[in-house]
Amino acid sequence: MARHGGAALLLLPLLLALAGSVAGDALPPRPLVIQLPTEEKRAEEAAEAELRCASWRLAGEANNLAPWAAVPEGCVPHVCAYLTGPAYRSDLDLVAREASAYARSARAADAAWVFDIDETLLSNLPYYAQHGYGLELFDHREFDRWVETGEAPAIPSSLRLYREVRDLGFKTFLLTGRTEAHQAVTVDNLRRQGFHDWDKLILRAAADREKTATAYKSEKRKEMEAEGYKILGNSGDQWSDLLGYSMSARSFKLPNPMYYVP
Amino acid sequence: MARHGGAALLLLPLLLALAGSVAGDALPPRPLVIQLPTEEKRAEEAAEAELRCASWRLAGEANNLAPWAAVPEGCVPHVCAYLTGPAYRSDLDLVAREASAYARSARAADAAWVFDIDETLLSNLPYYAQHGYGLELFDHREFDRWVETGEAPAIPSSLRLYREVRDLGFKTFLLTGRTEAHQAVTVDNLRRQGFHDWDKLILRAAADREKTATAYKSEKRKEMEAEGYKILGNSGDQWSDLLGYSMSARSFKLPNPMYYVP
Repeated sequence: MARHGGAALLLLPLLLALAGSVAGDALPPRPLVIQLPTEEKRAEEAAEAELRCASWRLAGEANNLAPWAAVPEGCVPHVCAYLTGPAYRSDLDLVAREASAYARSARAADAAWVFDIDETLLSNLPYYAQHGYGLELFDHREFDRWVETGEAPAIPSSLRLYREVRDLGFKTFLLTGRTEAHQAVTVDNLRRQGFHDWDKLILRAAADREKTATAYKSEKRKEMEAEGYKILGNSGDQWSDLLGYSMSARSFKLPNPMYYVP
Repeated sequence: MARHGGAALLLLPLLLALAGSVAGDALPPRPLVIQLPTEEKRAEEAAEAELRCASWRLAGEANNLAPWAAVPEGCVPHVCAYLTGPAYRSDLDLVAREASAYARSARAADAAWVFDIDETLLSNLPYYAQHGYGLELFDHREFDRWVETGEAPAIPSSLRLYREVRDLGFKTFLLTGRTEAHQAVTVDNLRRQGFHDWDKLILRAAADREKTATAYKSEKRKEMEAEGYKILGNSGDQWSDLLGYSMSARSFKLPNPMYYVP
């Protein structure tokens, strides 16, 4: 709403200048009228944006979007409302419940569960709230500074799932796009948020830096299989956590409308 | 809302009977008070159901749900509102636009695009509107009777995509779970809705009847590859249209909250 008011104010000097420039010439064919959007028009535009942005978010969750670098500008209010309202929490809870029901039914010797970390076990919402909820292009340095604080809170439904999966006897592998430089702070952050006793924490080595997440994570899953583990479950907020090769028997895509990792 | 009123009416005879049965005994410790849900309570319950059902629908689109036989009973109003309101159309349009942008950028010799038929090219919404929008368990006989009418309308965004993909030179393969017994009516239905000149229409043969859709469709895609086609695009409303082996370079999952095909 403020956006409209702002646009009208910005246009004002332009219109005055235009009016000035034609003053010496022939009069313009129609009087200059500044048409401010009506309440009705604004409500219509808001409903249209809501529809369009909900479709965009759904398409992302269903892996229908081409790689994208930032949330479409008109969709930031939608994404912000989604993440800070009850829907994001409800969506996370339901995915965890489905994963939990599956974990209880799926057993095997050397069964393993792979967890991604960012936006899967830990939430970087406090960081993204300060950076336009995905509107800003990703800034590695800024984000690294946030990671180094070790202050990312647990996603509660993921913590419950993590504990349950461990209690059921699954080996738990944390497979993250974070680099090895962040190992100590990541371990510290996870522990302070209640995650303990994982079997392996795998971070990106220097040799993995140029690989896509899909390639890097597939390679690591293949290594797990080569070591004799049977990957029955995989939880991640990116399709690149889940697709590729050596895929898990079942995968759980946690919602994330803020960023896309190829 | 009607559901609450109905429940209160149904309870009335029971309460009267209860009241009668205690008349000769000691009086009940508290007076019997029929508490009708208040407007506020009803609104709260409706909001809770909306949240829960939206999460369920999103989880289905992201392939997070275990195989399900029917829409959860409390979610039929949500599914009905989604399908008959603007959101379903908006979601279908966006997926088709993404597919179209990809089709224009992706070229190869002998490039092929695979389309599913039901809820992808043709809509069975008129049938499901008469059968609880997915609440009723799937009835093969009833559904076959509907298929035999040949009255399924085109999904407009899919028709546009189909034509564009053909114009771009892709081979178009229609790969459907419909059986060969429905070949003639399917061809007729497709043509009357504007679909023409596909390269192959593949229906389930008797030998395919016991296979899951994932297995049957993977086999058929593998045959296409063996014939030298490069499958660059695949449009379907079920994950079983898209996953398995010989997968397409990119897949497009159209929304469908009415039924699940394994």
